[in-house]
Amino acid sequence: MELSVKTFDLEAGKRFTVIINEKDMLKERIRPGDRVSVSGPLDTLTAFVNSTEKIVKEGEIGLFEEVSEKTGLKNKSIGKVEYSPPPNSVHSIRKKMNGGKLSNEQIYEIVRDIVEQNLSEAEIAAFLVAQQTIGMEMDEVESLTRAMADSGKKADYKKTTFTKHSIGGVPGDSKVSLINIPIVAAGGIFIPKTSSRAITSPSGTSDTMEVFAEVDFSIDEIKDIATKCGAALVWGGSLNMAPADDLLIRVERPLKLDPLSQMLASIMSKQVANSVDFMLLDVPVGIGAKVETEKEGKKIAAKFSELAERLGISFKAVLTYGGQPVGHAVGPALEAIETLMVLNNKGPPSVTEKAIALSGIMFEMAGLASSGQGDAIAKDILTSGRALTKFQEIVELQGGDPKVKPSDIQVGEKKFDILSKGDGYVTAVSNERICKIAHLAGAPKDKGAGIYLHKKVGHNAKKGEPIFTIYSESGKKLDDAIKFALKYAPYQIEGMIIEEI
Amino acid sequence: MELSVKTFDLEAGKRFTVIINEKDMLKERIRPGDRVSVSGPLDTLTAFVNSTEKIVKEGEIGLFEEVSEKTGLKNKSIGKVEYSPPPNSVHSIRKKMNGGKLSNEQIYEIVRDIVEQNLSEAEIAAFLVAQQTIGMEMDEVESLTRAMADSGKKADYKKTTFTKHSIGGVPGDSKVSLINIPIVAAGGIFIPKTSSRAITSPSGTSDTMEVFAEVDFSIDEIKDIATKCGAALVWGGSLNMAPADDLLIRVERPLKLDPLSQMLASIMSKQVANSVDFMLLDVPVGIGAKVETEKEGKKIAAKFSELAERLGISFKAVLTYGGQPVGHAVGPALEAIETLMVLNNKGPPSVTEKAIALSGIMFEMAGLASSGQGDAIAKDILTSGRALTKFQEIVELQGGDPKVKPSDIQVGEKKFDILSKGDGYVTAVSNERICKIAHLAGAPKDKGAGIYLHKKVGHNAKKGEPIFTIYSESGKKLDDAIKFALKYAPYQIEGMIIEEI
Repeated sequence: MELSVKTFDLEAGKRFTVIINEKDMLKERIRPGDRVSVSGPLDTLTAFVNSTEKIVKEGEIGLFEEVSEKTGLKNKSIGKVEYSPPPNSVHSIRKKMNGGKLSNEQIYEIVRDIVEQNLSEAEIAAFLVAQQTIGMEMDEVESLTRAMADSGKKADYKKTTFTKHSIGGVPGDSKVSLINIPIVAAGGIFIPKTSSRAITSPSGTSDTMEVFAEVDFSIDEIKDIATKCGAALVWGGSLNMAPADDLLIRVERPLKLDPLSQMLASIMSKQVANSVDFMLLDVPVGIGAKVETEKEGKKIAAKFSELAERLGISFKAVLTYGGQPVGHAVGPALEAIETLMVLNNKGPPSVTEKAIALSGIMFEMAGLASSGQGDAIAKDILTSGRALTKFQEIVELQGGDPKVKPSDIQVGEKKFDILSKGDGYVTAVSNERICKIAHLAGAPKDKGAGIYLHKKVGHNAKKGEPIFTIYSESGKKLDDAIKFALKYAPYQIEGMIIEEI
Repeated sequence: MELSVKTFDLEAGKRFTVIINEKDMLKERIRPGDRVSVSGPLDTLTAFVNSTEKIVKEGEIGLFEEVSEKTGLKNKSIGKVEYSPPPNSVHSIRKKMNGGKLSNEQIYEIVRDIVEQNLSEAEIAAFLVAQQTIGMEMDEVESLTRAMADSGKKADYKKTTFTKHSIGGVPGDSKVSLINIPIVAAGGIFIPKTSSRAITSPSGTSDTMEVFAEVDFSIDEIKDIATKCGAALVWGGSLNMAPADDLLIRVERPLKLDPLSQMLASIMSKQVANSVDFMLLDVPVGIGAKVETEKEGKKIAAKFSELAERLGISFKAVLTYGGQPVGHAVGPALEAIETLMVLNNKGPPSVTEKAIALSGIMFEMAGLASSGQGDAIAKDILTSGRALTKFQEIVELQGGDPKVKPSDIQVGEKKFDILSKGDGYVTAVSNERICKIAHLAGAPKDKGAGIYLHKKVGHNAKKGEPIFTIYSESGKKLDDAIKFALKYAPYQIEGMIIEEI
């Protein structure tokens, strides 16, 4: 059909949409959500259709800036509009929904259409739900990983490249990388580490690092930093590596969809794009962590291991204790302070031990330590201050102040101590509730917000003793956090005798 | 956060969307596709977020007309914007994805949120894919049916109400209702029949009826028509009965999703909304029909039967022969002509027999004929001309010309005969290819477009004899249809001796 163009002075993004009056839609048997081809003097393109009663009249088509520009259809010109069938990738998604196995080409096509925004969110959702309910074979996961990596930018450092990745879910864990990466870099491992910002957790590694320095760099800048000091601690979010991921997350997040196949592909595609040769995967296991049982942790680790082998990445996974927060500090500024304490050999043993253990394994993977000797090397680097020096080097190269002291880091001015209601031992600290309280207090958005845990599992607590302190930058947020903490205690404190009979 | 409002003079529909700069999104840890609450002087409402680099600047929020009006937030005023978690119905959808069973309340909540556009298309897709891959129990299907019916308008005729519904898929089938409904109405059955317009088939019952009369009426007008003559033949599309359906179809169609549970609920919710007491379901079975095997047909019929019983609808299903088009005419005008031929007792036996058989069963269901006697009554009504009189009555009440003759109906002026390439017998006519050719010729959009089949399965065809004629209103469309027909013959013609050995 031919329609008169009405342009809207608005950029509507890469997923093209046009607006057609519902009477024309009915006449042409086009449904909202269908695709049409729109032809103008410059080009023909495919767009999704929205129907309207009013925005455009019968005989008109509403075009946003991009479509108007690309087709060359100006206001009041005449555009040719025809129904256009869904692309092949939609057939492949349907095949997966019906239990079929997708070929390498089909998966590349799906990923390309996701990145080029040729698929609607409903179609992307169908792909994700089919992954969750039907599942994918490892061949398919490998294709998905490679397709995602190939769809974006890549970094090649021309050096044997390491990474350590935690699948996350445990508050306080973000700081471990800020200790572990300087240790291994000081020991000669090349590790340009990209990490994420937290969405629901109290702090991501990038959030904590940002307390010290910049984290938003281009690939070339990261290369430069890493070439100079052997490491980087940067945000991976703006690098356009594996760009399909953002478009998938947009659909996954409201539905809390996280099919294992997609998690494998998301994490590993970024390693492929970052030319990683060696990878250590940290799988925290415990109630309230992403992985709740050892059995599940082993299953996931085995899948990652199989995929890494197919991708030519030397791989090791460790299950770590994730039953309570890591260390005492939760939230960007508080974790930054704890990072400096550990690097100055004044930190809590649990964080120190975790960082040393991960580093030791990496030295052994790299052949820089013989089996069982990695820990000693890592410990020596930490205690000798060489890890601190390396960290300061990274901070300086990323535009921060290398001489920053714990007392220079500002935490939230509003704070509140939660006291023990009785005498006893801490038998549990809830990851979820600690996250929620830190989140209510303002973390990770407000860098100074968070929680300091005075007591951890196994510690003795006396009635009236502070068990944790909530920090916030806002009185209102502090109140919300306190209210929640008093209603849903994140601690269990019990006497040694649980019940007398 | 507080943002300065930038209004856009554009209605963006019932599914509210706001636009926020990506820097603010990052700061607030809000992702595209998340929901936010937007508060202004008049009201607080929930909207989906789109991120932008340019449309609005940092510190601004873009609002379309509806959101601006409802919240009272005018251009350059300050709106309060906070992250808002997904509604409960999203949790229920997740439960279904994980294999859970939904309660009546959960399903009502999902349907309400679909109708009120509180769910994104991705979330609706997740619900549909989970129905397809996980499935629904009959309890859930019943809830879904009732929820869909309760979410829209209802008609109550205060009379025992019949309907006949075909699950479709066979070209030429649309005319059967135009013969069957007048027969049963003339015999005393009250049948205000709503039907659909075709999307991919060459003609829906409403499309064919529209050749004779208007089909777009309000519920009150339909009541009026049906009260006067005991029947109606109208379009159900604009009645706002079971409105969730349109929003679901929008997602189903590009993905060709049609989970059985949703098909059951869609069809039956409209019967509940239309206060149907008795229902005959026609399940055409054959290659290229919606249902390809008798086994599958029986399974589907049993599901419908179980659901109808739960809904208090007296129900019968018949499997009919759907291996080739019904009758000789395919397309609105051609089928309208064939309808008049049958009503004048000059039509092809297959159409006549199907209409009589369906009508006979309905008379028996209604207790107006004893078992096995329904056919005779139906035949008598047709041959005596009472069915024609009733049809003319309906046409007149719906604003058409009751005296219309076959020769008054205009078919496409461009036509082309496809000739037999050899001598033999027609062994197959492909439903799909006939649909495709009719569609290319312009049906159902162009009323005069379609196909007339001179030969059907079992007929003898001599070399050079016309086997079918394509009609079109446009030379270009006729060419496209001819090209396809010559490349992909919709006929198989074979000698009695298939192979000599």
